[in-house]
Amino acid sequence: MRISKLAERTEVPVPTLKYYLREGLLHPGRATARTQAVYDSSHVERVRLVRALIESAGLSLGSVRGVLAVLDRPPATRHDLLGAAQDVLLAGEGGRGQQDGGGAASAAPPEGVPPEDPWSARASALVASRGWCSDDEPLVGRLAEQLRAAGAAGIDLSEEHLTVLADAADRVAAADIASVPAGLAAAVRHVVVGTLLTDPVLLTLRRLAQQRASAETDSSAAGEMDSRPGQV
Amino acid sequence: MRISKLAERTEVPVPTLKYYLREGLLHPGRATARTQAVYDSSHVERVRLVRALIESAGLSLGSVRGVLAVLDRPPATRHDLLGAAQDVLLAGEGGRGQQDGGGAASAAPPEGVPPEDPWSARASALVASRGWCSDDEPLVGRLAEQLRAAGAAGIDLSEEHLTVLADAADRVAAADIASVPAGLAAAVRHVVVGTLLTDPVLLTLRRLAQQRASAETDSSAAGEMDSRPGQV
Repeated sequence: MRISKLAERTEVPVPTLKYYLREGLLHPGRATARTQAVYDSSHVERVRLVRALIESAGLSLGSVRGVLAVLDRPPATRHDLLGAAQDVLLAGEGGRGQQDGGGAASAAPPEGVPPEDPWSARASALVASRGWCSDDEPLVGRLAEQLRAAGAAGIDLSEEHLTVLADAADRVAAADIASVPAGLAAAVRHVVVGTLLTDPVLLTLRRLAQQRASAETDSSAAGEMDSRPGQV
Repeated sequence: MRISKLAERTEVPVPTLKYYLREGLLHPGRATARTQAVYDSSHVERVRLVRALIESAGLSLGSVRGVLAVLDRPPATRHDLLGAAQDVLLAGEGGRGQQDGGGAASAAPPEGVPPEDPWSARASALVASRGWCSDDEPLVGRLAEQLRAAGAAGIDLSEEHLTVLADAADRVAAADIASVPAGLAAAVRHVVVGTLLTDPVLLTLRRLAQQRASAETDSSAAGEMDSRPGQV
């Protein structure tokens, strides 16, 4: 198909498709003339993936490039799969929220957290208590940073609340891994793209569930009766 | 304290603090001379909040401004609290991932999803089956968009997998709402900032838990024995 048809099929304007081609996010079509090329279903699929990673997962173009690189060159064994997938997930998310001009000090990588830091100790203790991974894992450093950031902003998660989050994570992860397909390339795609694209789903579900949980609290409370129709 | 001391306390460089002041993310200090001002603990607290929202939650400066506006002018009744909180959460996240130049078609707002869309029907069915909120909720539109984006990228969540995510969301939300403090301003802060700053914690926990779930699958599988030390 011509690029105009690719635009129609993917609902992505031609100038954006040309931009993706220039940036290497989309593989070239088969040239049919000096200034013309034809595209096939692999281009439709790739464009849809790029759009989903940008719009739904909120990745930067640089992070999308990292994800595509892993998908195009999957690790050689199934064992390396999750490691490679998580490396790109970690790198991709590190790229978020860096619109800010300064702040080199608190933008230090998670590896920079000193071991005596209380948030680091709390993250390590949680990970150990769940039987998760070892202490030197970059993810543990990231968790410590996130707990520290929340604590600095006055949000100090109770042990009980954190345990609920960890229990939820364990259940979700078990379902995630159980659904990984057999083939290596398909498995990489499933873990990387599947996690990135279902993260926002999980966060939206959390908000939807918060509304009901809040409505239940409201209706069991004495004051402030609600006059809006259709509410339970 | 002088601005240099504020920089030291918050680990945010003076030029960045001046930028926050110019952008209205930080309230002015008390002027002591034509070019000097002093700052207090309220400034330390605000700077830490801004940093956490940018670095941990990954918000843009514009979204941070929206969050601060709700915190500074909380809704008049507790009933309006979650609605106001979720409006700003929704707006804040809508601002993510818009680094891309084009693609107006698929960047349409969730409200634009036609009701006959299968993803929209699936989102509505899920919400109805959980006893969550009503159909015209923007969050349901957002969920439909996220499911559509995942589906377009080849990630079609099974009913079973989606149910696990929804169950996890229900448990997390119940703990979220149970931990909301009594005071109105504190409650708004807790819901908005607490949700934004614990979202990344939840996603990191998911990845940590995936590693263990994957290791369990590996060790129960026949092939590819692992020779790395210290792994179970």
